[in-house]
Amino acid sequence: MKRVYLDNNATTKLDPIVKVKMQPFFEELYGNPNSLHQYGIEVRPYLNEAMGNMYDALNAPDADDILITSCATESNNTVLKGVFFKHILKNPTKNHIIASAVEHPSVLETLHFLEENGAEITFVDVDAYGYVSAERIAAAITDKTILISMMWANNETGMIFPVAEVAQIAKERGILFHTDAVQAIGKVKVDLTATPIDYLTFSAHKFHGPKGIGGLYVKKGSELPNLLHGGEQMGGKRAGTLNVAYIIGMGLAMKQSVGHLEKMNSDVRSLRDRLEDAISQIPDTFVVGDRERRTPNTILISLRGIEGESMLWDLNRAGIAASTGSACASESLEANPVMSAIGQDPELAHTAIRLSLSRFTTADEIDYVIDVFVKAAERLRSISSTYAYTNEVG
Amino acid sequence: MKRVYLDNNATTKLDPIVKVKMQPFFEELYGNPNSLHQYGIEVRPYLNEAMGNMYDALNAPDADDILITSCATESNNTVLKGVFFKHILKNPTKNHIIASAVEHPSVLETLHFLEENGAEITFVDVDAYGYVSAERIAAAITDKTILISMMWANNETGMIFPVAEVAQIAKERGILFHTDAVQAIGKVKVDLTATPIDYLTFSAHKFHGPKGIGGLYVKKGSELPNLLHGGEQMGGKRAGTLNVAYIIGMGLAMKQSVGHLEKMNSDVRSLRDRLEDAISQIPDTFVVGDRERRTPNTILISLRGIEGESMLWDLNRAGIAASTGSACASESLEANPVMSAIGQDPELAHTAIRLSLSRFTTADEIDYVIDVFVKAAERLRSISSTYAYTNEVG
Repeated sequence: MKRVYLDNNATTKLDPIVKVKMQPFFEELYGNPNSLHQYGIEVRPYLNEAMGNMYDALNAPDADDILITSCATESNNTVLKGVFFKHILKNPTKNHIIASAVEHPSVLETLHFLEENGAEITFVDVDAYGYVSAERIAAAITDKTILISMMWANNETGMIFPVAEVAQIAKERGILFHTDAVQAIGKVKVDLTATPIDYLTFSAHKFHGPKGIGGLYVKKGSELPNLLHGGEQMGGKRAGTLNVAYIIGMGLAMKQSVGHLEKMNSDVRSLRDRLEDAISQIPDTFVVGDRERRTPNTILISLRGIEGESMLWDLNRAGIAASTGSACASESLEANPVMSAIGQDPELAHTAIRLSLSRFTTADEIDYVIDVFVKAAERLRSISSTYAYTNEVG
Repeated sequence: MKRVYLDNNATTKLDPIVKVKMQPFFEELYGNPNSLHQYGIEVRPYLNEAMGNMYDALNAPDADDILITSCATESNNTVLKGVFFKHILKNPTKNHIIASAVEHPSVLETLHFLEENGAEITFVDVDAYGYVSAERIAAAITDKTILISMMWANNETGMIFPVAEVAQIAKERGILFHTDAVQAIGKVKVDLTATPIDYLTFSAHKFHGPKGIGGLYVKKGSELPNLLHGGEQMGGKRAGTLNVAYIIGMGLAMKQSVGHLEKMNSDVRSLRDRLEDAISQIPDTFVVGDRERRTPNTILISLRGIEGESMLWDLNRAGIAASTGSACASESLEANPVMSAIGQDPELAHTAIRLSLSRFTTADEIDYVIDVFVKAAERLRSISSTYAYTNEVG
């Protein structure tokens, strides 16, 4: 059966050259890089190369840290719980954290947990485009604010948030600034020399690297207590034996991905736009967020009268992978949280389907998806009681 | 050049069949198992098989959790910081934790951190064998004790600690019990139905699985707050996209490793004993801990007048990988911590060399190591000012 993967905001296919690059570190080169003998020493140049790739790709100053973590969730927890231990637990007059209402669950859930333990949190709403403006964030600042956490691009809609502006505001107000850039790397330009960011989160499996490895950029002077205390790895700032194969894979994957930024913003954007143009012609559809402000690979579309899950299954039967929203919350089958956040009524919030492309997506695949999607919409509406009802009263 | 790897307590070679088993999950089967479409669904049976392997290998009751983490360090931090948030932060009258003085740095450093934040910690000393008795642990219990954390086997000496006895004492006194079993899996029998353990830590790369994946067993009823909050993975108890390839690898590696428990305790033990017998005949040597109470693969030997680092380099030049102690602390070149803990004078504590075998170690390799080791000891003593001095005054 034909298979088309359009769920690249959930996870991506490993870049084939990354797979090849990792192989030796599974068998022959298995030393612990912290060991003093040859088995340990011989893997270090490869690790150094991988770290160099990441510093280059993010244009991170040498003096700053890029800590390797097991995933973006760990990176986000490291920042938020680090701020809790270093600042909030010691000084309750600085216990306020600001975040957008549409952050990833690894930010939202951690903040809810810290709220139970003495932190004050303000979740800033998004507008009807799923966008949060710098003004809205700034308006939430109080004398007690210690940290602002705002994602670079939203996983559901692809909406790109005003990171440079908010980072500048935070800097001027003496507030720490964290951005979850998981959906930004390889899609928008990320420059850590140009933008005054204290903490930036990334994850390899969102840019064709392996699952189970991520990173956290930490600006010099903004260090936090470890989330993982222990050995002397990562300069003592993140303990745990290094996942050598995956670090090497992540370094190459990031280099490749950032190297394809232009292709992403031309070829992939064209394919996305073609797909969006076609499926937007289906009557009574609604795409969240204006195209120009979105990452070039993402569409979140709502089809009145069609449950997101029903569309997902029709697509799946035709070999097409899509999503009703974040895979991290897929077990609960809740309404899409961004659709709820922008104020859609629950019925419409349940009709969202996310399609997310990658640089490996082909024009043939998009043509196939358009064909299947349009037919599925017709079929599902023909059996939809809510859509028939809407039309009768409309 | 001939190469012999005798640093298996630091990390191990990936079992070749584990490498093969993981391959499809790097390329074709790259879906996020939390996704609802075919790409997500098709990897789930393999994950279930892997989890089943682990429950079987540890004889863990179905009702209990085995959470997948990124490493033993994460598992240990999860337990200690979870106890801090759930118990100590809420009720300072139950803020006391007991641990042996020779725990892994991921326990010791985390406890030091919690001490700065309001926990009281008792580190229980080991005896001259590097052993900690159940009586010593019991003597440290107070009305404020909430948790005992004691490793199953020590990474430096291989000494096996009285886990069953201490677990029983903890249970009777209403105290939570955690054991870091990183050095135990595949070397001693671990049975979670027979032993009343609340939390047990393990790490794949110590039993021929990949680096960067580990686990935490949690008994039903002893649940703790997440160290990683976020998505709904692992029943909401450890967020972060699943490292599918490594989980599948770890399941098979644990099955294989526990399946070779008998070989480890016969063939590997024989090789270890042969090596130990030979190098113990070098004058003025001292092996820590009685052989019968050690894991079958480990020797920690001290050679008066020879710096551990010097011996390590002589071995390394001959292609043999050994260690002066934990790789997690190798950058600081401190005296071996267990040698210090058993009360050795600093000079002797700097002379420790650890040799740790695996089921892949061969008799030929051991013969070669004996030859190199004996000659290196002679050479290094011939140029040692401290050893000559000792002999002159002795």
